[in-house]
Amino acid sequence: MTISQTGKSNERPAAKLPEGYTIRPIETDDYERGVLKTLATLTTVGEISKPEFANVIKEWASHGDTYTTLVIVDGQDQVVGVGSIIIELKLIHACAKIGHIEDISIRGDQQGKKLGLLLIQSLTKIGEEKGCYKVILDCDPKNKGFYEKCGYQQAGLEMDIRF
Amino acid sequence: MTISQTGKSNERPAAKLPEGYTIRPIETDDYERGVLKTLATLTTVGEISKPEFANVIKEWASHGDTYTTLVIVDGQDQVVGVGSIIIELKLIHACAKIGHIEDISIRGDQQGKKLGLLLIQSLTKIGEEKGCYKVILDCDPKNKGFYEKCGYQQAGLEMDIRF
Repeated sequence: MTISQTGKSNERPAAKLPEGYTIRPIETDDYERGVLKTLATLTTVGEISKPEFANVIKEWASHGDTYTTLVIVDGQDQVVGVGSIIIELKLIHACAKIGHIEDISIRGDQQGKKLGLLLIQSLTKIGEEKGCYKVILDCDPKNKGFYEKCGYQQAGLEMDIRF
Repeated sequence: MTISQTGKSNERPAAKLPEGYTIRPIETDDYERGVLKTLATLTTVGEISKPEFANVIKEWASHGDTYTTLVIVDGQDQVVGVGSIIIELKLIHACAKIGHIEDISIRGDQQGKKLGLLLIQSLTKIGEEKGCYKVILDCDPKNKGFYEKCGYQQAGLEMDIRF
């Protein structure tokens, strides 16, 4: 599967999935396909039961176009990549939308296959197709170069407060 | 009105609204109270009719707890401050939530009254009350000091792509 490039990144070559791999929206049975283990490459996931997992997928789906989570599945039917985009409706720019890319994770043994690039391209394309005028994401400074390869540029600083 | 401080910012003094000012969720009739003019302090708003404005408020309300937009109203019943928090449900950290603060704007002639600080404190408190483990926002590097006064700290870089 080839994902066509969008926006500023359209001068760059589109990433291709390796033979036998697919990319598609997350589904409840991805619980058994190791999606949480893949997500644990990124950060702490904790104990999530299948009903709890199913409840998050259902809750996301109840918000129309707001949430899209994509998974990359390998030839052994295992989830090796996962990432989300959240579409936000604003008042500014004549009631415009923006996309927030969140929680990109590629399984450690799958590095070097450009799966991260393909996931970002695919989520960015969804943002563009849903009418966003821009897509934003926050990253560690060490990953800035990767996102520049995906067509992104630095726009500001991420600030946080934790409870 | 005093907004109690939350999280890391609870060592700092809580901001107080000037006499006669109120802070509350946005409503459709704020269209006539100059909310779009206040938002235009931040960025381009464009032509938005009252039905279009009402439609955004209605769309936000249809997403349960996802969107909260607060306005600060002065003694002349004019909106002099506006800001939003979007609550995102995640899988990571045992199906945790985070808040995204967006589109903070204080009318130019209202600077120096700590309305920005009060708005950020109020939106942050909403994030905490709705069960977020953190609240994030993106800012221009020149505003970093202001957000540090609000109890925030730098967490990463904001990257964007525009269409």
